[in-house]
Amino acid sequence: MGRAMGLAGLLLGLVVVPAVLVSTSLRHGAPRAGAEPEPSDWEVAADAVPEDSLWPLPQWVRTYSRQLHLAPGRFQLVHGAGSSAGPGCGLLQDAFRRYYEYMFGHSRRRTRSRRPLAARAEPELFQLQVVIEAGDPGCDRHPQLTSSEAYHLTVTEPVAILKAYEVWGALRGLETFSQLVHEDDYGSFLVNESEINDFPRFAHRGVLLDTSRHYLPLKSILTNLDAMAFNKFNVLHWHIVDDQSFPYQSIYFPELSDKGAYSSNLIYTPTDVHLVIEYARLRGIRVIPEFDTPGHTQSWGKGQKDLLTPCYNGEQPTGSFGPVNPVWNTTYDFMTKFFKEISSVFPDEFIHLGGDEVDFSCWKSNPEVKKFMKKQGFGTDYAKLESYYVQNIVDIVSSYNKGQMVWQEVFDHKAQLKPDTVVQVWMASNYAHELSSVTGAGFTTILSAPWYLDYISYGQDWKKYYSVEPLNFPGTEKQKKLVIGGEACLWGEFVDATNLTPRLWPRASAVGERLWSSSNVTNLQDAYKRLTNHRCRMLRLWQL
Amino acid sequence: MGRAMGLAGLLLGLVVVPAVLVSTSLRHGAPRAGAEPEPSDWEVAADAVPEDSLWPLPQWVRTYSRQLHLAPGRFQLVHGAGSSAGPGCGLLQDAFRRYYEYMFGHSRRRTRSRRPLAARAEPELFQLQVVIEAGDPGCDRHPQLTSSEAYHLTVTEPVAILKAYEVWGALRGLETFSQLVHEDDYGSFLVNESEINDFPRFAHRGVLLDTSRHYLPLKSILTNLDAMAFNKFNVLHWHIVDDQSFPYQSIYFPELSDKGAYSSNLIYTPTDVHLVIEYARLRGIRVIPEFDTPGHTQSWGKGQKDLLTPCYNGEQPTGSFGPVNPVWNTTYDFMTKFFKEISSVFPDEFIHLGGDEVDFSCWKSNPEVKKFMKKQGFGTDYAKLESYYVQNIVDIVSSYNKGQMVWQEVFDHKAQLKPDTVVQVWMASNYAHELSSVTGAGFTTILSAPWYLDYISYGQDWKKYYSVEPLNFPGTEKQKKLVIGGEACLWGEFVDATNLTPRLWPRASAVGERLWSSSNVTNLQDAYKRLTNHRCRMLRLWQL
Repeated sequence: MGRAMGLAGLLLGLVVVPAVLVSTSLRHGAPRAGAEPEPSDWEVAADAVPEDSLWPLPQWVRTYSRQLHLAPGRFQLVHGAGSSAGPGCGLLQDAFRRYYEYMFGHSRRRTRSRRPLAARAEPELFQLQVVIEAGDPGCDRHPQLTSSEAYHLTVTEPVAILKAYEVWGALRGLETFSQLVHEDDYGSFLVNESEINDFPRFAHRGVLLDTSRHYLPLKSILTNLDAMAFNKFNVLHWHIVDDQSFPYQSIYFPELSDKGAYSSNLIYTPTDVHLVIEYARLRGIRVIPEFDTPGHTQSWGKGQKDLLTPCYNGEQPTGSFGPVNPVWNTTYDFMTKFFKEISSVFPDEFIHLGGDEVDFSCWKSNPEVKKFMKKQGFGTDYAKLESYYVQNIVDIVSSYNKGQMVWQEVFDHKAQLKPDTVVQVWMASNYAHELSSVTGAGFTTILSAPWYLDYISYGQDWKKYYSVEPLNFPGTEKQKKLVIGGEACLWGEFVDATNLTPRLWPRASAVGERLWSSSNVTNLQDAYKRLTNHRCRMLRLWQL
Repeated sequence: MGRAMGLAGLLLGLVVVPAVLVSTSLRHGAPRAGAEPEPSDWEVAADAVPEDSLWPLPQWVRTYSRQLHLAPGRFQLVHGAGSSAGPGCGLLQDAFRRYYEYMFGHSRRRTRSRRPLAARAEPELFQLQVVIEAGDPGCDRHPQLTSSEAYHLTVTEPVAILKAYEVWGALRGLETFSQLVHEDDYGSFLVNESEINDFPRFAHRGVLLDTSRHYLPLKSILTNLDAMAFNKFNVLHWHIVDDQSFPYQSIYFPELSDKGAYSSNLIYTPTDVHLVIEYARLRGIRVIPEFDTPGHTQSWGKGQKDLLTPCYNGEQPTGSFGPVNPVWNTTYDFMTKFFKEISSVFPDEFIHLGGDEVDFSCWKSNPEVKKFMKKQGFGTDYAKLESYYVQNIVDIVSSYNKGQMVWQEVFDHKAQLKPDTVVQVWMASNYAHELSSVTGAGFTTILSAPWYLDYISYGQDWKKYYSVEPLNFPGTEKQKKLVIGGEACLWGEFVDATNLTPRLWPRASAVGERLWSSSNVTNLQDAYKRLTNHRCRMLRLWQL
């Protein structure tokens, strides 16, 4: 009836993986430390190898077989001596509370068998001391592209030390520390002595959520931000509006959502938006909003008259509308005011301007547009008109001191972009070539093309996402450096609150490790083992 | 970046579909009634056409534009005059309570705007009277293959009447009635006057759940039973054990789950099993357990020594095991006792014996098996050995007065089957031919091959499931009558509690309508509209 037997599921989330194996101390291609440890350090751990549940794999990990015991009633997360952060650092205080709960919270509701006395002799770990080294720890700031996420973690009796330059690195280190702590069969919490030196391979590691095709309740977005933090993602690319609906409640233009949202309660109020941004900030995640124009804007037209281009059939308007009208001054008046609001509501340095998939047929039908083309000397090259529009928007947004992200067509159509513009490569066909072109022209870029996670297929497709190497394109070292990261995209045509989480996680985890870990972390078997444990942990945390 | 615009989602569950259209009174190919109603009966309804949310579409529907008002505080579901069922009928009492809650329960938590006075003038519907016509209404029985699910529903002022021969038909009619009731923008409950005559096209309409590849918590199974009732499915095919795990806790052989389950808490106790059966019964759903042998039995071997065939490499046992050992008497002693328990625990007339995908390589390697083949004169035809085994099991199970279901290989390999055996066709390649063969040999059959819902792909694959015509195979009228239904199968390799519901529903709804409604209900646009509303309703009910 079913299946060839033995086709094991990707996600045996509920299966306890048996303890095995010798502890490998230095992991994959991480820079080797000077002195190798003595053989006695290499004993087989009583439980599974501690790094068997680390995800994404840190750059440099050494673990020892010696286990330390953590007593939930005594163990503390504290600010270490010499840290520039202290109890006034709300971001870290919140993280301490959160990670304490992640590590120990679930155990309160469990009964357990009594631990044999002999096994209680482990030495104890009393504290994790967090030391922020920068003069300004960044507690009240927002994370940005140039933030440091590096950290150094040593776990030895009696205290573990987590050092980071900024709070953002401390957040990543707390996640790693919590992944090292495990509960044995008797309900005891254990951590192996270890040393970890870690930093991200790429600075921009994003997840795109689409709240236009289907509305996503706030809770779904927040749950996803938690999952992103578990996987060390640091950018929520919020594709907030599109043709289908306009759920963003604008302060200046409330009619946009009044008329463009699916319904009056399926919107994001200013309070909602602020909550998402703050929830993300506390997890070291940037929120980059995308207000995609001039295409993908049908829903804008419902609340803002005279914004979209009227389409014509010969001399007659058809009653349908095309992309934003690029020839009227009122368009730019509106956009100036609109992006002023967006620049102020969203604190990130970058705004995503979209610019993809502009359908020229309506522009081509419109007499005013045709006249304008002639006047500008664009001939019949509507890509020039698109670039004209985009350059106006770029100038508007630049005047608010915001950097820009755009989809690849904006680059392909030769718009004059600011030097720090980030070009997002999404077209699946020959994306390596596109990466070459974009970086060859000196622009920074992020890769999404192989990571469209809304496309589904039977079986373990995470391997496909995992096996992508973003720098595998023809180009110089200088070009490779311009690839600042990538994004897993979950478009919303077939996604809503009912299936978002199981569709995105842990498939996006594969992208998360590719963007964080060293380029030579590519072993699928090893990844499978760690990903299985990681998923199991995520399930447990979601049920907290 | 994303998608061609306008690719609307399958499941705009959260989108309110605007009211439209003229009320079509007589639906798709249903037998026409004698007198056509007067034109005045055909006015456009103030709201959406009532049958726009019926799923699966009844065999015969006539709706009128006249709307009746239901006041939650006054409206009652009651036993009608002349019914053989009364307040002592727990099954109906429970159904009354459940459907009252479905219809009105969600409204309590909603605030609403005030209804204009003028609109309050509708006539009122005070009761739904349920009349069971059979001498024995069946309240305390279990549904079976031959149960009547037909019903006749008339909704007119001041009372609606639901007539059914047995309680099973009343359950289906209650579901339909609840689908007719809708809430307007002011929070008023309305139903259009209507008349519905309905019965299933096929008697066996199943969903297969697999609790071996991944354990499914009881709650997931019960939620799925609710969804099945919403879609008029009437068989839960419980593929309860397989190679990967043995979660069924046996009374006679507790070691099977002690050692064969994923863990000691990932099991179904006798109480759990009883709860599933009773929850299903109250919804008119049969529970057919599958204990698949002789293949797919690796997990059985953990708790029951000397049951599986030891595999050999030349003269030496390899330590691995193959299918159930068909040559030892102890095997049949065990199976006799085991199936005695199963026959008693599961009240359904049928047990599914599996019999699929038997790998002969281990049998071929085993010296004792080879000797037995010789002795029996089977030559090297291991299909004969398989049939020998299966016939023994069939005889055992028959002695407990149970009918049998088997996967198609059992038929293909020419086992001597009891005349009432149901052969389940699952192989995708040329299933029409297999249906011809099975029915040509005089066996009843159910179809699953085109309805393996664990296989996923991008987009609206429900259309593929919907477009299957089970009787589209070469055969006589008599052969067609032997097709008693079908099953949507959700194998568990990539399914657990996190994704079961969104993966199965509403995709399985497509199968549900194909198996219930008239063969000419095939219009995809009409189905899309109704399915969208139906999903919306299911989401609401799940959130109750």
